[in-house]
Amino acid sequence: MPEKTRRQRATGPRDASPVGNLLIAQSGGPTAVINQSLVGAVREARRRPGRIRAVYGALHGIQGILDENLVDLGRETEANLERVAATPSSALGSVRRKPTAEDCHRIFEVLRAHDVRYFFYIGGNDSAETAHIVNEEAKRSRYDLRCFHIPKTIDNDLRENDHTPGFGSGARFVACAFMGDNLDNRALPGVKINVVMGRHAGFLTAASALGRVYPDDGPHLVYLPERPFDVERFAKDVNGVVARLGRCLVAVSEGVADRKGVPIVAAYTKEVDSHGNVQLSGTGALGDLLATIVKEKTSIGRVRADTFGYLQRSFAGLVSEVDAREARAVGREAVRLAVAGAFKEGSVAIRRARGSRYRVAYERVPLRKVARETRHMPAAWINKAGNDVTKAFLDYARPLVGKLPLIGRLNARPVRPSRA
Amino acid sequence: MPEKTRRQRATGPRDASPVGNLLIAQSGGPTAVINQSLVGAVREARRRPGRIRAVYGALHGIQGILDENLVDLGRETEANLERVAATPSSALGSVRRKPTAEDCHRIFEVLRAHDVRYFFYIGGNDSAETAHIVNEEAKRSRYDLRCFHIPKTIDNDLRENDHTPGFGSGARFVACAFMGDNLDNRALPGVKINVVMGRHAGFLTAASALGRVYPDDGPHLVYLPERPFDVERFAKDVNGVVARLGRCLVAVSEGVADRKGVPIVAAYTKEVDSHGNVQLSGTGALGDLLATIVKEKTSIGRVRADTFGYLQRSFAGLVSEVDAREARAVGREAVRLAVAGAFKEGSVAIRRARGSRYRVAYERVPLRKVARETRHMPAAWINKAGNDVTKAFLDYARPLVGKLPLIGRLNARPVRPSRA
Repeated sequence: MPEKTRRQRATGPRDASPVGNLLIAQSGGPTAVINQSLVGAVREARRRPGRIRAVYGALHGIQGILDENLVDLGRETEANLERVAATPSSALGSVRRKPTAEDCHRIFEVLRAHDVRYFFYIGGNDSAETAHIVNEEAKRSRYDLRCFHIPKTIDNDLRENDHTPGFGSGARFVACAFMGDNLDNRALPGVKINVVMGRHAGFLTAASALGRVYPDDGPHLVYLPERPFDVERFAKDVNGVVARLGRCLVAVSEGVADRKGVPIVAAYTKEVDSHGNVQLSGTGALGDLLATIVKEKTSIGRVRADTFGYLQRSFAGLVSEVDAREARAVGREAVRLAVAGAFKEGSVAIRRARGSRYRVAYERVPLRKVARETRHMPAAWINKAGNDVTKAFLDYARPLVGKLPLIGRLNARPVRPSRA
Repeated sequence: MPEKTRRQRATGPRDASPVGNLLIAQSGGPTAVINQSLVGAVREARRRPGRIRAVYGALHGIQGILDENLVDLGRETEANLERVAATPSSALGSVRRKPTAEDCHRIFEVLRAHDVRYFFYIGGNDSAETAHIVNEEAKRSRYDLRCFHIPKTIDNDLRENDHTPGFGSGARFVACAFMGDNLDNRALPGVKINVVMGRHAGFLTAASALGRVYPDDGPHLVYLPERPFDVERFAKDVNGVVARLGRCLVAVSEGVADRKGVPIVAAYTKEVDSHGNVQLSGTGALGDLLATIVKEKTSIGRVRADTFGYLQRSFAGLVSEVDAREARAVGREAVRLAVAGAFKEGSVAIRRARGSRYRVAYERVPLRKVARETRHMPAAWINKAGNDVTKAFLDYARPLVGKLPLIGRLNARPVRPSRA
């Protein structure tokens, strides 16, 4: 094939990236902008016919490779790709599966059979680990593969990143939900507790504070998994806010745990079980437990709880534009890096430039640096009492969610009372 | 006061509406557009200085009248009123309280003391009843009062109305939530059950079907309180959808009940209690119960449930434009009707013109016709099996929620399998 040879020569000796096919897949929990990354990568790949011949997608992550369930993304129109980019939740389907040694063997069988030389895996830290495992296996088998991870997670907990694609849109949902619920709570006062996603990292729950406009706006209390949760302290906090404002809106991460790291529902249920109480379970358990605690330990009448659930990660039509743009960029950057040839593996990390204007840069980091371990809310972003976020967090997060809806309030000048 | 006399004469004999002050209040569950109605009424009232002198608001519905907690809405700037109009949840605060005879006495004391001759109450059927009670009391006391109800409810269950302000925006939230969750469920297949608001009327749950684009899009099953819910039938339905599509998205009203009208959680828990099962309770109880039933009665592994909760009624930044426009109009119309003088009391009903183009008219109906009783989904809008809505419902509801986000899907042309 003289065509191939000519192309290889043309790119010069420094650029040692192979010529072959590309395979991309999505993994883990979907986000509102994960398809921006897919389309960013696919469109960039289609602009590189000298290196990348066919652009394939695997359905449902590595499961699609194991089952040889591949689709030809080279045959999608640009218009359709753009529609998909603007659509929430993994268009190629997703999976939660860590490849075993046997899986790796099968994966390489399929990659070889389809001459795949570029592999991209969009996901969180587990997906980065999968990419890392696949890359290690490629090295061992001396199979020339470019293996890149493209970041995604609403949890915002990937190391090496200032923030991750998907977080801005998830945070925007949480902020808008709390803006509305704060007004609802103000109209019909009482205690309202909202449970937000986040098992180990509190970023998404912290975003509940982004919609505050007036000094008395909620959430008035924010509890994150980064700080131990104390039931007595919580009841006291709520009582204090109600005494001051006549109402209280609470944001709490699903992952809050006691000093020993035991999730609150388990810890508290165990403690009170000896007193004959019924065990709480199910999707609303944490919210229900906290509502029960407020009712038992205070004299407040109206107490309600909601658990936000899956809506936070792929609500249709609610996207942070910055998030969408960056999700597109990390997909594109991953392909550029892989084709450039300087690195055989890596992940694209988002770094924020210093200064008052919000600007980001994309940097390649080794896979092992983002795989497995996660990061948490820095101490400086949580107040001393452990029941709110600081201004530093709000300054950090504001540019990521975009402009929030404008909220108004009546001036409400009192009418002089009659003598009736 | 010659000014007053001149004005009264100028309007002529046919128009017998009094000259005095106006009082407006909001009641019941907030909606995303309830302040459009408030601002529609206030701005119209401020254009009628010949009839209406001061424009007052009562804080937290009739509670604010009882406590003489009134604000001067004449002193709000137009710009601020417009900001408030675009803000979700009752800006004057809300209340759930039916006036007693004693309350009525006190209400008239306050109305008299402030020379209130125009009373407007924004709310659902309970609020219409309150307006009705106040109006009857005014007649008995020979107090010349114009008493009007302005419709509002996400439940869409007011009689005499084609639909109610607040429903379009609530339905838009539910439709967008299901669009995203359908894609989430498609990416990570399994059974997903979403519990939607609606104790007696299924309109909001039915709106879950509005976002379907492709033939296999969910919700695949829709259960409404208008039809008895059968647990065995439900499990069979879910199994059937999973057999066909490998996944199943379910929409269910919080108010589903068995043939005897007993709510499902109570009915089922009672039934299985004799077998030693733990009682389900709390905010997620119905979703958790249905998830448990699917797990017990089928062999499906991944089953999840969410309960949408309060987000449905006052999410910030998610509004149906048609809904906002109509909410504004009913507020304006109520003031026009009251000032025109032909009727001393009433509610503004939204009627839809026949024909393919969506058009509405606003009509005055007597208070007693919308008070207390509610309406339900017509039989023609529910399929025979009682587990889905019909095209007639979708045609009815589509204009009310506005254009939904565009959703794309990969063409996903399969790659020919290798011999690996």
